[in-house]
Amino acid sequence: MSYNLLKGKKGLIFGALNEMSIAWKVAELAVEEGAEIVLTNTPVSIRMGDIDKLAEKCNAQVIPADATNTEDLENLLNKGMELVSGKFDFVLHSIGMSPNVRKGRSYDDLNYSYLQKTLDVSAISFHKLLQSCKKLDAINEWGSVVALTYAAAQRTMFEYNDMADAKSMLESIARSFGYIYGREKRVRINTISQSPTMTTAGSGVKGFDSLIDFSERMSPLGNADAEECANYCISLFSDLTKKVTMQNLFHDGGFSSMGMSYRAMHQYNKSFDNED
Amino acid sequence: MSYNLLKGKKGLIFGALNEMSIAWKVAELAVEEGAEIVLTNTPVSIRMGDIDKLAEKCNAQVIPADATNTEDLENLLNKGMELVSGKFDFVLHSIGMSPNVRKGRSYDDLNYSYLQKTLDVSAISFHKLLQSCKKLDAINEWGSVVALTYAAAQRTMFEYNDMADAKSMLESIARSFGYIYGREKRVRINTISQSPTMTTAGSGVKGFDSLIDFSERMSPLGNADAEECANYCISLFSDLTKKVTMQNLFHDGGFSSMGMSYRAMHQYNKSFDNED
Amino acid sequence: MSYNLLKGKKGLIFGALNEMSIAWKVAELAVEEGAEIVLTNTPVSIRMGDIDKLAEKCNAQVIPADATNTEDLENLLNKGMELVSGKFDFVLHSIGMSPNVRKGRSYDDLNYSYLQKTLDVSAISFHKLLQSCKKLDAINEWGSVVALTYAAAQRTMFEYNDMADAKSMLESIARSFGYIYGREKRVRINTISQSPTMTTAGSGVKGFDSLIDFSERMSPLGNADAEECANYCISLFSDLTKKVTMQNLFHDGGFSSMGMSYRAMHQYNKSFDNED
Amino acid sequence: MSYNLLKGKKGLIFGALNEMSIAWKVAELAVEEGAEIVLTNTPVSIRMGDIDKLAEKCNAQVIPADATNTEDLENLLNKGMELVSGKFDFVLHSIGMSPNVRKGRSYDDLNYSYLQKTLDVSAISFHKLLQSCKKLDAINEWGSVVALTYAAAQRTMFEYNDMADAKSMLESIARSFGYIYGREKRVRINTISQSPTMTTAGSGVKGFDSLIDFSERMSPLGNADAEECANYCISLFSDLTKKVTMQNLFHDGGFSSMGMSYRAMHQYNKSFDNED
Repeated sequence: MSYNLLKGKKGLIFGALNEMSIAWKVAELAVEEGAEIVLTNTPVSIRMGDIDKLAEKCNAQVIPADATNTEDLENLLNKGMELVSGKFDFVLHSIGMSPNVRKGRSYDDLNYSYLQKTLDVSAISFHKLLQSCKKLDAINEWGSVVALTYAAAQRTMFEYNDMADAKSMLESIARSFGYIYGREKRVRINTISQSPTMTTAGSGVKGFDSLIDFSERMSPLGNADAEECANYCISLFSDLTKKVTMQNLFHDGGFSSMGMSYRAMHQYNKSFDNED
Repeated sequence: MSYNLLKGKKGLIFGALNEMSIAWKVAELAVEEGAEIVLTNTPVSIRMGDIDKLAEKCNAQVIPADATNTEDLENLLNKGMELVSGKFDFVLHSIGMSPNVRKGRSYDDLNYSYLQKTLDVSAISFHKLLQSCKKLDAINEWGSVVALTYAAAQRTMFEYNDMADAKSMLESIARSFGYIYGREKRVRINTISQSPTMTTAGSGVKGFDSLIDFSERMSPLGNADAEECANYCISLFSDLTKKVTMQNLFHDGGFSSMGMSYRAMHQYNKSFDNED
Repeated sequence: MSYNLLKGKKGLIFGALNEMSIAWKVAELAVEEGAEIVLTNTPVSIRMGDIDKLAEKCNAQVIPADATNTEDLENLLNKGMELVSGKFDFVLHSIGMSPNVRKGRSYDDLNYSYLQKTLDVSAISFHKLLQSCKKLDAINEWGSVVALTYAAAQRTMFEYNDMADAKSMLESIARSFGYIYGREKRVRINTISQSPTMTTAGSGVKGFDSLIDFSERMSPLGNADAEECANYCISLFSDLTKKVTMQNLFHDGGFSSMGMSYRAMHQYNKSFDNED
Repeated sequence: MSYNLLKGKKGLIFGALNEMSIAWKVAELAVEEGAEIVLTNTPVSIRMGDIDKLAEKCNAQVIPADATNTEDLENLLNKGMELVSGKFDFVLHSIGMSPNVRKGRSYDDLNYSYLQKTLDVSAISFHKLLQSCKKLDAINEWGSVVALTYAAAQRTMFEYNDMADAKSMLESIARSFGYIYGREKRVRINTISQSPTMTTAGSGVKGFDSLIDFSERMSPLGNADAEECANYCISLFSDLTKKVTMQNLFHDGGFSSMGMSYRAMHQYNKSFDNED
């Protein structure tokens, strides 16, 4: 079922690796909703993942770009605007990676060049993208930009490590740039703080299964999955949300507003059953 | 232009007084988007306002009800479900009133029976509505409930008076009941924190014009108006936002995330020009 | 060990029932720190509890008062100021009670006259106290008022019931009145959001033991106890915190900023051990 | 007047440049309260400022260190511990600088190597300090660490530029490291979000005077000054606040909880007087 919510709109989507990716689902759904899109990812992710399948399905082109590289970004935007014969109406930033997490460095034993990489990939890339968009005037008035984030930006999750600091910075960039891009070009910028999701990126975090179970039992509506997240993104790209900007929007089945649920407490209490 | 976002859905809308009302715009738009609706307001508001015009336009019935009265609410829900031949999929609560504000009592000179009235009308009515809905099983699974609130719940606005406390309580009720209604019936409950809006209710607050001007200059996208709020409500009633619950969602052109804008500061600075 | 932090200061303390009470610990510590205090509680709490022992220990008088009754409050303030020969420098509000919790009414089956009682005792009493203080000019310039609250005001805890809404309102009153009392008399008003604490009040909540265990394992410093809370209150009554106002201050060993700790997750995971 | 609140405690203080500095006031007050301290700053700040005067007054040594350099930090901690014959009980991080601000680069025209410098000096230095402290076991159990921050981390202030993102990250580091240092060594870590303050650092921000005036009129108790901030720091270093951790604490006369004050609105309204 399609509503044609994005009819006539043009979008740029970062971060689709394979069909588990949230960005993948967003791309599919955006096209179903009438949008024309351009896909992008790093050369290495393009090789390792299945983005070409997605491109075919979406009748879209893939332009390789390293989002930490301003030249790459400008090239991407220029080529992308050529492809869609105009400016973009929406952009999705779904990019994050921590070498400290990957290499198993604990948060009190960070490697600082890794940290710089974490920030560059997961947060500063968002600023670079926005600054490039604004310089090249690549987004139409009343356009919408969304970046994906996680609740660890507000409340510490063990093992989430320096990604928490990167996500805090990402959310701050959305506010800081949202002010400027809003007042000058009516472009809105928001972040979606998504439930823990079983993507390739998510599955790299240690103890992720347990966290997902706990989160599921804490959230009155259960965890939100990638497809539901795509639906929410579409609503934020549509004309229904034109005055929502500089917000961090929780899409998590209620998790962020829960202190303790009966279901999670009940499960927790079982842990004491065989302790004697 | 319509997307048929609410096709087949049935809604119940509180608080449409006249065409300045946010609830009025929501009703119109919900019907354009394919919904069948029932309208309600207090008998006195029905007499004083133009809701019958709206009903005609929306091909809807008006059922009078005092939202502070449980019997009235149950009668409304029973009759309403009969009218739409089923349960509701969405509900809008747009109700608020403070006798302390109306009678010009300052916040350090509250009349406590007025305060009780403020709470009863502006916050507890929301609990009564939800409790009645749940008891009568009046909302379909994955239904969506929205109540309107204001940023004074988080940050004090002079002259907003005891309405700030009522709105804080309203937002808390959305969370508390959102947990229970979510886990048991998948019903989501959210509040929209809307820009100051020139409705009949809003215009009762002293110094409201200045506040609107300041808020306009602080918000990168400007204040959100009633029609834009209706658009946002539709997105929250639609199936695109199924996992968003227990949230307070700012719909304010960015105001809530601003500390100081250049435009507001610039205007403020002019105030010193003729001070010498 | 005493620092004489409150030397020469006069305080009014609500809510000491027995030695488990936070207010009890605050009273003791305030006196150790050089303050002169007046104690108050409802007649029934005075009869049921041990406040007379505390009074003796603190060389203080007890003035009975129902904090929901404005006349009682004014009488209390007048008598209290007579006793301490002057105005108060600090006030502690440690009052909360829900008949819905006591009678086992679930949150989706609230009795609304009970709810009104919950609000009157747990939230509106704070406004009445502040309004009475201001009318009688009972607090010195740069005085400090603290009310105790709980994290359920922000994030839903099952079984905390309508107390969550009351605490949200209480925190809002602290802001709303903090603005007025601050600008006119330099009086600051804050709330302390305390760890779940094994007081007589706390132990009335169902499943409280489990919650305390979970909270203990989630909080990097463990739960804060009543005595530690008293220490924090003293710091807020002292001259070291003169410009802190309208804040909700978490005193919880870090709980409020935690999403998931290793310790809590580890315990939670044990719950699956004997599930097969 | 001194309370001996820090008697027997040893402290390390970063960031005292001259007597306008908050760190300067903290150093003076800590010593008055009975602490023994070590001062540190970058070699260039030591040359340009008056820290030697402070050292003399406080009977303290100055150890030069670049807080972005791990080796410098480790040397500082080792030497510092030798000087005070033991570990530290409290640490103040009052460090921040943005080359983008200094060079007048606007937020939509950031130089990315400047941004890296901003982050390195203003946020990552805090992580490096904490990681070095933990590795060298340089802080006693129940020690207290405070970093200074600003409300722009939550709400955008025009001209505050990339410092907003750095402060967001700083506050996140306080939470992330607060969890680990808390559970392992009982060390608490908090940030104080201080009113705009007329220090040498503050005065570098364009339009700072206007912002201070507006903030003064918005805050019911007026802006907090450097000396008051020092008082608040002392309370957080003392044993009165042992269970407060991972918090961002506003010390701002109420600004953070204000949406609009009568005084600020009144001044704002004057701006329209001569507009016709």
